[in-house]
Amino acid sequence: MTDEPVRKDSEIRRLSSSMGCGLKDDKASLASSQIAPFSHQPHRPPSTPASKEVWKKGGRMFSILLAVHLALLACTLVSSGAFEKIAVHDYDVFFLLTVMMLIVIAWIIFYLASTSRCPDAIPCRDSHAGPIWLRGGLILFAIFSLVMDVFKIGYYSSFYSCLSAIKIIYPIVQAIFVVVQTYFLWISAKDCVHVHLNVTRCGLMLTLTTNLAVWMSAVTDESVHKAHSKFRKNVTEELFRWLLKVGMRSSSAEECNCNSQICQIFNNGYFWLYPFNIEYSLFASAMVYVMWKNVGRFIDHHSHHIHRLKFRLFQRTFFVGIVLGLIILVSGLGVLVLYEVQINSSTESSKKSQALSMYYIFNIVCLGLMSLVCIGGSVIYRFDKRDMDRHKNPTRTLDVALLMGSALGQYAISYYSIVAIVASTPRDAVSALNLTYALLMIAQHTFQNIFIIEGLHRQPPKEDHRCDSHQKDLYGLTFANINAVSLRVPDSGSTLASTTASGAEGIHTSDFIRSLTAPKMNWRRKFLREISMFLLLSNIILWIMPAFGARPQFDNDTELNFYGDSMWPAIVDICLPFGIFYRMHAVASLLEVYIMS
Amino acid sequence: MTDEPVRKDSEIRRLSSSMGCGLKDDKASLASSQIAPFSHQPHRPPSTPASKEVWKKGGRMFSILLAVHLALLACTLVSSGAFEKIAVHDYDVFFLLTVMMLIVIAWIIFYLASTSRCPDAIPCRDSHAGPIWLRGGLILFAIFSLVMDVFKIGYYSSFYSCLSAIKIIYPIVQAIFVVVQTYFLWISAKDCVHVHLNVTRCGLMLTLTTNLAVWMSAVTDESVHKAHSKFRKNVTEELFRWLLKVGMRSSSAEECNCNSQICQIFNNGYFWLYPFNIEYSLFASAMVYVMWKNVGRFIDHHSHHIHRLKFRLFQRTFFVGIVLGLIILVSGLGVLVLYEVQINSSTESSKKSQALSMYYIFNIVCLGLMSLVCIGGSVIYRFDKRDMDRHKNPTRTLDVALLMGSALGQYAISYYSIVAIVASTPRDAVSALNLTYALLMIAQHTFQNIFIIEGLHRQPPKEDHRCDSHQKDLYGLTFANINAVSLRVPDSGSTLASTTASGAEGIHTSDFIRSLTAPKMNWRRKFLREISMFLLLSNIILWIMPAFGARPQFDNDTELNFYGDSMWPAIVDICLPFGIFYRMHAVASLLEVYIMS
Repeated sequence: MTDEPVRKDSEIRRLSSSMGCGLKDDKASLASSQIAPFSHQPHRPPSTPASKEVWKKGGRMFSILLAVHLALLACTLVSSGAFEKIAVHDYDVFFLLTVMMLIVIAWIIFYLASTSRCPDAIPCRDSHAGPIWLRGGLILFAIFSLVMDVFKIGYYSSFYSCLSAIKIIYPIVQAIFVVVQTYFLWISAKDCVHVHLNVTRCGLMLTLTTNLAVWMSAVTDESVHKAHSKFRKNVTEELFRWLLKVGMRSSSAEECNCNSQICQIFNNGYFWLYPFNIEYSLFASAMVYVMWKNVGRFIDHHSHHIHRLKFRLFQRTFFVGIVLGLIILVSGLGVLVLYEVQINSSTESSKKSQALSMYYIFNIVCLGLMSLVCIGGSVIYRFDKRDMDRHKNPTRTLDVALLMGSALGQYAISYYSIVAIVASTPRDAVSALNLTYALLMIAQHTFQNIFIIEGLHRQPPKEDHRCDSHQKDLYGLTFANINAVSLRVPDSGSTLASTTASGAEGIHTSDFIRSLTAPKMNWRRKFLREISMFLLLSNIILWIMPAFGARPQFDNDTELNFYGDSMWPAIVDICLPFGIFYRMHAVASLLEVYIMS
Repeated sequence: MTDEPVRKDSEIRRLSSSMGCGLKDDKASLASSQIAPFSHQPHRPPSTPASKEVWKKGGRMFSILLAVHLALLACTLVSSGAFEKIAVHDYDVFFLLTVMMLIVIAWIIFYLASTSRCPDAIPCRDSHAGPIWLRGGLILFAIFSLVMDVFKIGYYSSFYSCLSAIKIIYPIVQAIFVVVQTYFLWISAKDCVHVHLNVTRCGLMLTLTTNLAVWMSAVTDESVHKAHSKFRKNVTEELFRWLLKVGMRSSSAEECNCNSQICQIFNNGYFWLYPFNIEYSLFASAMVYVMWKNVGRFIDHHSHHIHRLKFRLFQRTFFVGIVLGLIILVSGLGVLVLYEVQINSSTESSKKSQALSMYYIFNIVCLGLMSLVCIGGSVIYRFDKRDMDRHKNPTRTLDVALLMGSALGQYAISYYSIVAIVASTPRDAVSALNLTYALLMIAQHTFQNIFIIEGLHRQPPKEDHRCDSHQKDLYGLTFANINAVSLRVPDSGSTLASTTASGAEGIHTSDFIRSLTAPKMNWRRKFLREISMFLLLSNIILWIMPAFGARPQFDNDTELNFYGDSMWPAIVDICLPFGIFYRMHAVASLLEVYIMS
């Protein structure tokens, strides 16, 4: 009954689009539509309009294969380039990345041109994709990335004559890439493209792979830099030798030194800005992935209520969460500065262990509080009568997968830590603190994931729905007789016709029930908002600390002695980037939970 | 119209099951069903009966978290135990695995008891899950695993007095575990459980994790063994020292030597049988995962035609595929034996490079043939008029994911090889062969994946359907007027009512069309069968070679010199197990493609 208009709509849309642009793809789909009626078309859910494609999975498979091969090639080069002994150099990596970025830039221009020329290219948009705070974050990180590129260009141009040209070309191309891609994602993040399906998929996968390759390269570069400045013997020299590695041309090493002050500022500056560039790549990857999932998708407008939720920060909160979060944030910054100064300046082991103790105690307090708050939040959700939101939503599915997946990084570090501490013999106070820290890290990640995932799967608050409650009750079910409710099983789509007759009374009843439960709801929701705001700010400080250089994993010798100089750095360098990404991703998700509750 | 009986059926089923067993879970679901009618239930596809659960994802999340934590703990211990320098010993790992296996055994007994007592526990079964060849393979590997356990028990009991008891207990418990789990999977692989949902999910995830942990332990054990026998200096002694590592109690080392002949046989025997145990764990993991996906699932009987496809090997083939495959298989076995003998006996580099050349040439021929055949198969699919099968099928989704995922292992090795060969300076014939081998490896995996995935997504042949063509044409579409076909768009579920009126004529027409295309179909299908049989046999030999000890990656020095002694073994030891698993999984999938085409 209610399905009819949508289907008609989609047929018209399809016909018009097959007359429009995207010639090649549409010819194939036309050919297939001639074959299709011979064959069986069993069980397409009647409410979603059919995709033009014969076999969506097949179309996706090719783009995935392309991405896999490119990603592996990049991974091989980047990981080989990280080792001094291996005859793969950073300019090999830069060359590959530059070529990839240039191709992506070309594709983005082609995409923007082809979709703007053709009005039917984007028949619908996914309102969940690319929310404003994600795009806002992307622009913020993009600006810092541009500054980083300027610093890099400045640094390398200080001794232009000794370097291969690619070292200067790379940051220039990267700057263009960042600008073009940010513009592209700002205007196209919500698109559900319906022309040039396969080309678009491959282009998006190429973009995704390029971002991941840039991320890998940045993470490796940063880890190598950290390793060199940690295990330092003549730090500057060694670092410098590494930076120039085989980038030298023919001139002598003397005139290629970074001795001028401006050069030093550029050098330090761009390493401090790396974390932003790293987050930029990851944010862009996530948005591009959602776009890829949305290629060829028809959004079912029934299941797709567009929530106009506003970010009203200072209207509905008690400030407790924000104040507590800000206290943690500021004290965390203080701890970080103190820690960095003490660890880097002193060589005494007593000072070092003092700094470590301070760091661990702060983290234990912070993680403990966060765990408790997350448990509290999950308990509140137990009593929350809001419905679970089961609609298809690629953005949320990705969010959940990324939260669960990136937590693995921190889990792995913590488990290796725990095993090392438990099996090592000298058990002092720092070890005890380290053990508590590792255990709490695991607990906090687990509880926070549960809290966020529950929050993301709730329907937005009901008061925002009331305006369209009449329309929605036609899809859902409302009963005039409350006593009948307990006897009905929830699966009753077929009884729709009979119940809509008593629709008018039904709506009044459900409104009445809602108004009964409203005051309690508000109490709970305020608590949830406090909790998510507190968690958000705490996650920011827990992102800042490792992202800007705190590495207790290396400053504390227990694990290093237990696993050896090659295994422990490998574990930390591979897993920590995921742990850092987890924090930033949790911030984005918590913002969504805050707005939804 | 046709949906009605199913829905009624499921309502009855749900009511009866909520009166039956699984008290705790059902109470929760009853409570939720009382709440549910108040809330919106937008857009559940009307043909699938609703699940009892409020939020399936939430139920799954907890079991995933359990699995993740256990898997990480096991991974930490296993990887630490592999290094001699790290103070984690193999008996720590054995202890953890033994405890896990005992819990799993207890849970399986509980599961079998609770589901057999309660007739409503399994209202439906997934006919795609646990096909007979997978279960057959499982039993085959289980038998070899049991033999391996016997060998292990025999070996360790030769010097019982010097070992910690866990080294003997472990194979005993493992044997019991294999027997219990094989029985469990044989009878329960298809179950869609509907009682104790959360307990069942956690139990299955525990089983899955245990299998993966056993797999990790076996793979590590085998790699260490291979590494010790490759880089040998006084092989037997060192190996022996490693095997006993810290398993010694107090007695002197002399009486703990494995000097008797029977002990040596046991020792060699169990290392030769490891590949079967490894495959057993992976097969069991895959089946348990599908069971986990099926917990709480209601199978929609419309979309779920149970194909009674028979494995008629010698009826519909030209034998070309089998003969060619057998030639490859037998000559591959010959090459493997020659290679192993030459590499292990001689220390001359010329003999070594001769053996390597032989190995590479055989593989290049084999991979080249396979790639060509896969391309041919994919071209045939282009002209195949059979419909794509889009039904939900967790088994197939898992198959595809595993094929794509495990191919990454071989891809990574090949990419690292290629980079090393291209960047290394001395380019001789062996390097050229190695490069060709690596490139063909990538190509063959890619083409084979495309071929298998296309094959798995085809509807089974139409002649098997003819018996129920009447019923199916009611869901699909048949047109009396062929000229009308080219004008219709495929999306026309809404026109069902109008077309079924002309059903009788339609069926005759479609039969007529089918009979026109039938001879061509048969030709193509015979080719596809030849192709899949050839690929199947080739994959078996490509499984046997690395599984039973051929490691050209280490016998050839290029990569080892390029990446160093720690990085290259790490890459190969982590990636090769996935590559080996890929081959065995491809065999299982190709068997399915063979039967379906």
